[in-house]
Amino acid sequence: MVVRGAPAIGIAAAYGYALEARRGTGTRARLDRRLVLAAANLRAARPTAVNLDWAVTRMERVSSRTRGGRAALQKRLGEEARRIHREDIAANRRLGRFGAKLLPRKATVLTHCNAGALATGGYGTALGVIRAAVESGRHIEVLADETRPFLQGARLTAWELTQDSIPVTLIADSAAGWLMKQGIVDAVVVGADRIARNGDVANKIGTYTVACLAHRHGVPFYVAAPTSTIDLATHSGEAIPIEERDPGEVLTAGGRCIAPVSVTARNPAFDVTEGKLVSAIITEQGVVRAPFAAGLKAIVSRRS
Amino acid sequence: MVVRGAPAIGIAAAYGYALEARRGTGTRARLDRRLVLAAANLRAARPTAVNLDWAVTRMERVSSRTRGGRAALQKRLGEEARRIHREDIAANRRLGRFGAKLLPRKATVLTHCNAGALATGGYGTALGVIRAAVESGRHIEVLADETRPFLQGARLTAWELTQDSIPVTLIADSAAGWLMKQGIVDAVVVGADRIARNGDVANKIGTYTVACLAHRHGVPFYVAAPTSTIDLATHSGEAIPIEERDPGEVLTAGGRCIAPVSVTARNPAFDVTEGKLVSAIITEQGVVRAPFAAGLKAIVSRRS
Repeated sequence: MVVRGAPAIGIAAAYGYALEARRGTGTRARLDRRLVLAAANLRAARPTAVNLDWAVTRMERVSSRTRGGRAALQKRLGEEARRIHREDIAANRRLGRFGAKLLPRKATVLTHCNAGALATGGYGTALGVIRAAVESGRHIEVLADETRPFLQGARLTAWELTQDSIPVTLIADSAAGWLMKQGIVDAVVVGADRIARNGDVANKIGTYTVACLAHRHGVPFYVAAPTSTIDLATHSGEAIPIEERDPGEVLTAGGRCIAPVSVTARNPAFDVTEGKLVSAIITEQGVVRAPFAAGLKAIVSRRS
Repeated sequence: MVVRGAPAIGIAAAYGYALEARRGTGTRARLDRRLVLAAANLRAARPTAVNLDWAVTRMERVSSRTRGGRAALQKRLGEEARRIHREDIAANRRLGRFGAKLLPRKATVLTHCNAGALATGGYGTALGVIRAAVESGRHIEVLADETRPFLQGARLTAWELTQDSIPVTLIADSAAGWLMKQGIVDAVVVGADRIARNGDVANKIGTYTVACLAHRHGVPFYVAAPTSTIDLATHSGEAIPIEERDPGEVLTAGGRCIAPVSVTARNPAFDVTEGKLVSAIITEQGVVRAPFAAGLKAIVSRRS
């Protein structure tokens, strides 16, 4: 959890692969073997965010296509990792501009977890949409779910937005429904860890609840993610592996124990929101609406 | 928040009124004046839980009906407070038995906040239903929402159930929707701070979200409360005052600051669930189902 956020995990994996290449000694053949092991280790780090596999696969492709000796490959992999990083920031800025147009001139936007600069190469996906909306002159106020158990909303989203002087109000996750019922939420924008071919979206635990609430209250529910988060090989959300993390994250808050020691906890770290609850998926290639299968396929092929 | 939970607030108010009477000196007329002020102070302590007004009104009725001097009234008020306390425990046991019959022989029951012995005179309302179900031989596992910001689920519900050796698993509030989608929640049972004439239920913030999720997933949503929580004078949930508490509760967890110091927060302490989302209201006079207006009126008149 030192690195978290699907795009940031992908970028870190690319740098990790490139760094592992730099640590290689001896022949090119020996380096290639080293990188097979590195790729396997990197892929095993986290199960849900598909950007991890996407970035490692892209680095592997560079390895297999690059001719020459060890030094040539090491150099080329360093360049590729930096390119993945740069492209992610550019993708965030582009998807931010697409997403900003979906928001009214004056809006209260609810977000869950942190899909900001701290979850990506920079700028952010969900927070990229919010930043671009503010840059375009819109008056945006943000409601940030604190996002238990890891409190990414309180610790990261609230901090990022405060740094950018974007008005942000922190709420307990369980207050979102009631505030939607009061009619004060104009839109929800969240990030994603993996988007299946049919538009199902895996994201931080609690996202599904927010999507159900948005649907019930007629609030648009937008998912902002680069196309590297779209996994056409996964047909639906049911096939997305959901990481179950240490119960200790639920049994503590702010580093303090909050429950009796004998109590057990469950800690699914992500959940899946069906595409039918998603108003639109905002990518750097444009905005996709239901039915998602055709739109996502078209947008991914446009990228390649 | 030293005393919390609607029935416990009512009982504490009754004892507070009786204690204030005991502190009175001088004539009966002087004591009567003292108690008018005490009643006003007690009623102003918390806005949402109607048991507070109910208990103070009941004590005032004793004051106005009791003839004789100061000592006679002091004695009579002490008896009445103890009676209110005893009656609450008896009501919990009765409603527990009614509620237990609504649960399957083997069930995973989700609860939000703490509606247990620590929120009542003893035994509990929602947890009273769970305790009675266990006593009747049912196999009950409890999923306890931690209930941010005040963590009553983690600190109180998990503790109470552990003491009674009833299996309990703690979850982040935002995991409830995902676990319902997995089909592992058989029923929801919660308490209430006030039930309006039309069946709208005010309860701890987050209850409305749980009710929306239960409705979406076809999970029965039960409200367990003594008839002292039913307020026929309040026509609908819109008329129930919702306490907005210190943002500091959201900005901290386990006593530690969890957000940047410059961040603001909103902290509505309760929310209102429309009666149409409630499968049944479980009281000591029996179980009421929609349409609630007639059923609640009948049950309250049966009590008197």
